[in-house]
Amino acid sequence: MAGSRYAYVRTFELPDTLLPGTFIVVRLDGHAFHRFSDEHAFAKPNDERALQLMDLAARSVMQEYRDVVLAFGESDEFSFLLRRSTALYNRREAKILTTIVSLFTSSYVLNWPDYFPETRLKYAPSFDGRIVLYPSAKEVKDYFAWRQADTHINNMYNTVFWALVQQGGQSTKEAHETLRGTVSSQKHELLFSKFGVNYNTLPDRFRKGSVFVREEIVLLHCDIIGDAFWSERPYVLEEI
Amino acid sequence: MAGSRYAYVRTFELPDTLLPGTFIVVRLDGHAFHRFSDEHAFAKPNDERALQLMDLAARSVMQEYRDVVLAFGESDEFSFLLRRSTALYNRREAKILTTIVSLFTSSYVLNWPDYFPETRLKYAPSFDGRIVLYPSAKEVKDYFAWRQADTHINNMYNTVFWALVQQGGQSTKEAHETLRGTVSSQKHELLFSKFGVNYNTLPDRFRKGSVFVREEIVLLHCDIIGDAFWSERPYVLEEI
Amino acid sequence: MAGSRYAYVRTFELPDTLLPGTFIVVRLDGHAFHRFSDEHAFAKPNDERALQLMDLAARSVMQEYRDVVLAFGESDEFSFLLRRSTALYNRREAKILTTIVSLFTSSYVLNWPDYFPETRLKYAPSFDGRIVLYPSAKEVKDYFAWRQADTHINNMYNTVFWALVQQGGQSTKEAHETLRGTVSSQKHELLFSKFGVNYNTLPDRFRKGSVFVREEIVLLHCDIIGDAFWSERPYVLEEI
Amino acid sequence: MAGSRYAYVRTFELPDTLLPGTFIVVRLDGHAFHRFSDEHAFAKPNDERALQLMDLAARSVMQEYRDVVLAFGESDEFSFLLRRSTALYNRREAKILTTIVSLFTSSYVLNWPDYFPETRLKYAPSFDGRIVLYPSAKEVKDYFAWRQADTHINNMYNTVFWALVQQGGQSTKEAHETLRGTVSSQKHELLFSKFGVNYNTLPDRFRKGSVFVREEIVLLHCDIIGDAFWSERPYVLEEI
Repeated sequence: MAGSRYAYVRTFELPDTLLPGTFIVVRLDGHAFHRFSDEHAFAKPNDERALQLMDLAARSVMQEYRDVVLAFGESDEFSFLLRRSTALYNRREAKILTTIVSLFTSSYVLNWPDYFPETRLKYAPSFDGRIVLYPSAKEVKDYFAWRQADTHINNMYNTVFWALVQQGGQSTKEAHETLRGTVSSQKHELLFSKFGVNYNTLPDRFRKGSVFVREEIVLLHCDIIGDAFWSERPYVLEEI
Repeated sequence: MAGSRYAYVRTFELPDTLLPGTFIVVRLDGHAFHRFSDEHAFAKPNDERALQLMDLAARSVMQEYRDVVLAFGESDEFSFLLRRSTALYNRREAKILTTIVSLFTSSYVLNWPDYFPETRLKYAPSFDGRIVLYPSAKEVKDYFAWRQADTHINNMYNTVFWALVQQGGQSTKEAHETLRGTVSSQKHELLFSKFGVNYNTLPDRFRKGSVFVREEIVLLHCDIIGDAFWSERPYVLEEI
Repeated sequence: MAGSRYAYVRTFELPDTLLPGTFIVVRLDGHAFHRFSDEHAFAKPNDERALQLMDLAARSVMQEYRDVVLAFGESDEFSFLLRRSTALYNRREAKILTTIVSLFTSSYVLNWPDYFPETRLKYAPSFDGRIVLYPSAKEVKDYFAWRQADTHINNMYNTVFWALVQQGGQSTKEAHETLRGTVSSQKHELLFSKFGVNYNTLPDRFRKGSVFVREEIVLLHCDIIGDAFWSERPYVLEEI
Repeated sequence: MAGSRYAYVRTFELPDTLLPGTFIVVRLDGHAFHRFSDEHAFAKPNDERALQLMDLAARSVMQEYRDVVLAFGESDEFSFLLRRSTALYNRREAKILTTIVSLFTSSYVLNWPDYFPETRLKYAPSFDGRIVLYPSAKEVKDYFAWRQADTHINNMYNTVFWALVQQGGQSTKEAHETLRGTVSSQKHELLFSKFGVNYNTLPDRFRKGSVFVREEIVLLHCDIIGDAFWSERPYVLEEI
């Protein structure tokens, strides 16, 4: 066959099987989304349309890949949990990683016009991704707790920050200065006393991020740091 | 800090540095594009619009990532060569792989309407990808020769096959039967005698695939199997 | 510094950290020990001195590496279990693997004269090794059960086989023929009826292999397939 | 089969094929040899018997593994170069690494009495090892140049240091103090003026380390930093 004398180059394709018996987490992040959100005039501190579009893209990943049992998103990132026993693509790392990142990207771009009908995409947005393995259920819970705690911390900061800028008339530099060294309770207080905003009444989507679980792929904005979420859904981490 | 007791989960993110001093090839393929091309009524054996859209997506990758010095595409796949000395993302495998696959996907979807103005995307197309390392220039040349030889073999087969079906009135089963065991010269002859088509006059794009090289990212449909292409462009494989 | 212009070659030394939170098993095997046991006239089917020397070498590994909590040996192989939370050499794979294989080898050769006082080593014996990761306690138990079941199967076969040859006067070819297709109960019966040997009274060392556990590094020849062994020693698999 | 329900644990043994087309370097180092050399009263700054024993162990590796084409040793370390095209153990990393480290260790211990007839081994010495891949001949040359430059630097320092201590009556602390910040020419001068020693007349073994090359496995103590060594032996780095 004509191509056969070159076919030896395939021997350089080395196997990349992921360790069996481990939970697989795929986390993707918007690539240079600081600039992207500026160029497309995202609302601050949270752009609900942009978050909904992220949710939609994540939902399409869960619909396509039945072994994704949980997803969590915030801002421009999403994490997908594959069941421990998954044999998707024989657990080949690059194949799992790229198909999920690619489908997410594709769905994001395809559905953009529905969420931003008046803003054309100026250029093609992209996402990077990585795979992390976790051997036990405890680590998986802590992983998602870590992401949700991050959501909380960032959103709290950003909410006060943008209130200071947008309503308080501070420059961004001044606003950072005002917030330096403040703890959570002080930010709560500042938000309430200065701007009449009770942080706890802000939308769950902003404060808790987005949680997808099977079956039926339900979208929630609930607490996944505590044990209640997990003990009500033992199937998510069960070792089938 | 609130999230700090979960932060240990980051220690499960292991380094994935690619061996220095090697050429990096990123190859991506359309995911389930057989179905995708049917659902979107791609012309057979080659859909020029679809190929041009692939080329455009590849061009956007080369524009964004300056260390991609060569790209070759055919059908629903594209291969990108990064210069041997690239320090892109500190040669982290997942980062390089996902950003390129994601940007390609994004550009493909974003620009679809320009190439298929009358065909809406029915669903989000996606691509998978992998990275292969090659230690020497010889292997890189043979890699691309392997892909271009594949282009030739497939296109030759598909051209005769679809002529038999579309003009010759054979069923697809009969057409496969007709072609079983034929060598290249017989296919040439069959195409010419039965359908008056001189294979060598078909568009270069179909017969040779698409080649992008820096600088200025030129699109060619030329021979990359022989040495001439490489010796005229020593900078592509040079060890900077 | 004189060497500094060459020091870049160190960048080719890539990290090889083992996934945290997993049990590490190091298994080593005698390299070409079929020939080695022939050349040094090991008794068949089991050479007690050779097995004791293996045990001694394994004991020296456990004495040196405190994170090895369990070891199992049979014939010319030994498996070492490192505790799940071990930070030995920062979990660097090559370092852990080579130091254990090297120390085992060294101890084997150093102590050879005590076990084979009348047989000089004709050449240097060596061992190969590998590391396998297991995410959960169940898999670790099954790993060791797999090795002990192997011990049982091999020893049963070899015991009957060598009885047929040494006492029964069969050639090795005839003995294999005699045993072809026999199940465990038939081998028991054959051994008892023809040679008056009750398999179950053979030494535990031959039938069950060698088990080392911390603390105090106790040598046992007991059953590790059932749960009793593990439930009496919860500390072996505990997740510290 | 009795063991079959446990056999799934083998699926956790993942492939570890080394990239084809690359030079493989195995480097091993004495494990805690500072203490080992003290306990066994090695002569300072160089113990010729200990170096000869290292050489012997390296020679046994080259005799056993025909694809090792070059070896370089100094002090308690040795590096082995496998030919680029080697298919030894199908290029499985752990197998290649452990068999070489184990055989080296075994040979070292086995032959100890011939080199130290009056010093019994107090305990089992061991070595750790790692594998590094190099894509091109240039990097291989620079790797070995790096090791030989290291030999030179260390030996120069140690020679003057121990002269200051052994003949000069300085404490080790004082000797380090004396040498702090000195460059090569100053050490030469100090050695000559104070102790009448011309560094360049010291044995090649101490100043240049030990080089083994095929065929016939010749032991040399020659210069491998320059090009002469390599151009006289093109077969060492040839790409068969």
